[in-house]
Amino acid sequence: MAKLERFGHGGDLLTAAEMFGCQRDFVDFSSNINPFGPPSVVMETMEKVLREPGLPAIAVYPDPDLRLLRKKLARLHRVSEEMVLPGNGAAELIDLLVAALKPKRVGVVEPAFSEYRLAAQKREIPVQSVITGWEQDFLPKTEEMETLIRDVELLFLGRPNNPSGHFITEGQLEELALLAERFGTILAIDEAFIDFVDQGETRSFISRLSRFPHVAVLRSLTKMFALPGLRLGYAVAGENLIRRMKRMQVCWSVSGLADRIGCAVADPDFYHGYVDEVRRRLVAERKFLCQALRRFASLEVYPGEANYLLIRTIRGRTSEQLQQQLGKRGILIRDCSMYPGLDERYFRIAVKKREDNQVLVQALGELLQEG
Amino acid sequence: MAKLERFGHGGDLLTAAEMFGCQRDFVDFSSNINPFGPPSVVMETMEKVLREPGLPAIAVYPDPDLRLLRKKLARLHRVSEEMVLPGNGAAELIDLLVAALKPKRVGVVEPAFSEYRLAAQKREIPVQSVITGWEQDFLPKTEEMETLIRDVELLFLGRPNNPSGHFITEGQLEELALLAERFGTILAIDEAFIDFVDQGETRSFISRLSRFPHVAVLRSLTKMFALPGLRLGYAVAGENLIRRMKRMQVCWSVSGLADRIGCAVADPDFYHGYVDEVRRRLVAERKFLCQALRRFASLEVYPGEANYLLIRTIRGRTSEQLQQQLGKRGILIRDCSMYPGLDERYFRIAVKKREDNQVLVQALGELLQEG
Repeated sequence: MAKLERFGHGGDLLTAAEMFGCQRDFVDFSSNINPFGPPSVVMETMEKVLREPGLPAIAVYPDPDLRLLRKKLARLHRVSEEMVLPGNGAAELIDLLVAALKPKRVGVVEPAFSEYRLAAQKREIPVQSVITGWEQDFLPKTEEMETLIRDVELLFLGRPNNPSGHFITEGQLEELALLAERFGTILAIDEAFIDFVDQGETRSFISRLSRFPHVAVLRSLTKMFALPGLRLGYAVAGENLIRRMKRMQVCWSVSGLADRIGCAVADPDFYHGYVDEVRRRLVAERKFLCQALRRFASLEVYPGEANYLLIRTIRGRTSEQLQQQLGKRGILIRDCSMYPGLDERYFRIAVKKREDNQVLVQALGELLQEG
Repeated sequence: MAKLERFGHGGDLLTAAEMFGCQRDFVDFSSNINPFGPPSVVMETMEKVLREPGLPAIAVYPDPDLRLLRKKLARLHRVSEEMVLPGNGAAELIDLLVAALKPKRVGVVEPAFSEYRLAAQKREIPVQSVITGWEQDFLPKTEEMETLIRDVELLFLGRPNNPSGHFITEGQLEELALLAERFGTILAIDEAFIDFVDQGETRSFISRLSRFPHVAVLRSLTKMFALPGLRLGYAVAGENLIRRMKRMQVCWSVSGLADRIGCAVADPDFYHGYVDEVRRRLVAERKFLCQALRRFASLEVYPGEANYLLIRTIRGRTSEQLQQQLGKRGILIRDCSMYPGLDERYFRIAVKKREDNQVLVQALGELLQEG
């Protein structure tokens, strides 16, 4: 049987259409995108690009140095422009870190976003991992972590972790950053989903970067601003590391449209208010979904802090069976059985709008009682 | 003094604005884009994306396997879908070739598009080059070429060459492809501008690929369809090579919008008619521009076959001086002094619409008489 995640990720609507029939729009819980869609400023910017006199932004080359966008992002995070590198999605920045550093060994705390591992493996760089689990809050023991940081030259850490939604505390993270400094290891903190976490902004490691030159922070604009089809992320790190990453980047990697829309959403006057509002609504929605799902005796919900929830079935169906049955009803979930450390009981769902969340809860209720 | 090509390429309007003042829209002869702008189907597709019910193409993940786009391109060129790899501009495909093949040495026939050299140098792969010149039609002697192909594992060749516009004949190219096969060298033929060359379609090497498994063809959709801000190119080659390149590509490298617009322009029913019409008009325009410029005793125009012309000054001003003086009048040209094999006398201009070409001819006339 074909797998919905045959290309390694959620959000693959074409494969879903092949698997489950194309009659309807799917309610997609398999990718973790802001369910309220792109903010109006995004569509307004696209309209402006279409209508503006002279050549539209797609008909001229993007700025090869992304000067305006870097300036906006630098102002947003109160860092220098030389500490910011926009990329063609956070996935490109993960790749650039590995390409630039050429580490002898890459470290991953599993389960984790699969692109960390892939960026190493495709270059035949060995991956050393520590596999963690639900009962230990997806956090390795201190001594395991110390060994890992000592043994690798680049360590990826999701904050929040994907797929669990676990959010490592500032104290724990500073300890890891100090270890990284001691061993000369670069610590890459993936904050792709941090905007969805309560107080994410003040808890971001970006404000601490000046004290930790061994740390790089990766961010995404595609999750919060619902732009995964546009591709836009950025790295914030010391100027030297940014220069090395930039050197490995292909020219014009960020499209002119992503540049323009990025400038619009990264404007501090817009960004903070919008992010606060979405976060507030989705934190409430996560609690609703969590409570509703915990009523099912055959499901356990991990108390993650992001805009998605990791769930396991206690008995009965595997996540793949659930995915099949939900898929036929037009609902997509992310089967997590392929993550190292997880198994066929695990799946992940995005936190969506109330009406969609209710559809999922209802469908799960019916399916689990059938089982 | 700041250089207009400080990031290595033409079309840098932001640097131009800094250098020459921002009061006006530039007439940009420094980048080789179809001067008629994107065809209406591009803007219609963007409108459709903005208006369509449900989530717009920018708000969902791109197809990670670009199935529809690969199908369209395969049908366009009558090859299998497994022989096609779309990329984030032709620049990404150049990079992927080097990343996938990990050649011990990369070959370049200079002067050439600078990204060939850069893709090797940033990986600390030595570049072996043959420097050619105007008087030998930018073609190395056979024995030099044989040595180059024998010594490198990957050779880039622009067809037409950029910046000269020289177009190597089918016979000469087949000889090189046979040499490449003999020595196990991959020959990458960059056809980014071939759509502008008279009979380009029938002269493309894509139809010969089945006989030459050592050859890869790189194409761009951003020049003919005036989409440099969107980023879209593709490689056509044997399935094995395509698989190796794809393995090195970052997930979702081509944006959802580029995918959608690519599907629209690569439709054979649209593509051929549009390309024929633009080519016909620009071939005529190139002849007009060529004749007009040859009237200036202090300029020599190389008889290139593409939508741009390489020119050298015989006496008097350097190309940089001309660039400065034209820039102040709102006209941008490409200083070619940084190309290996060329010097401070060389510049390149795109073939544009009649009224723009007349503006350039007039301005050059005034400047050269002043000199």
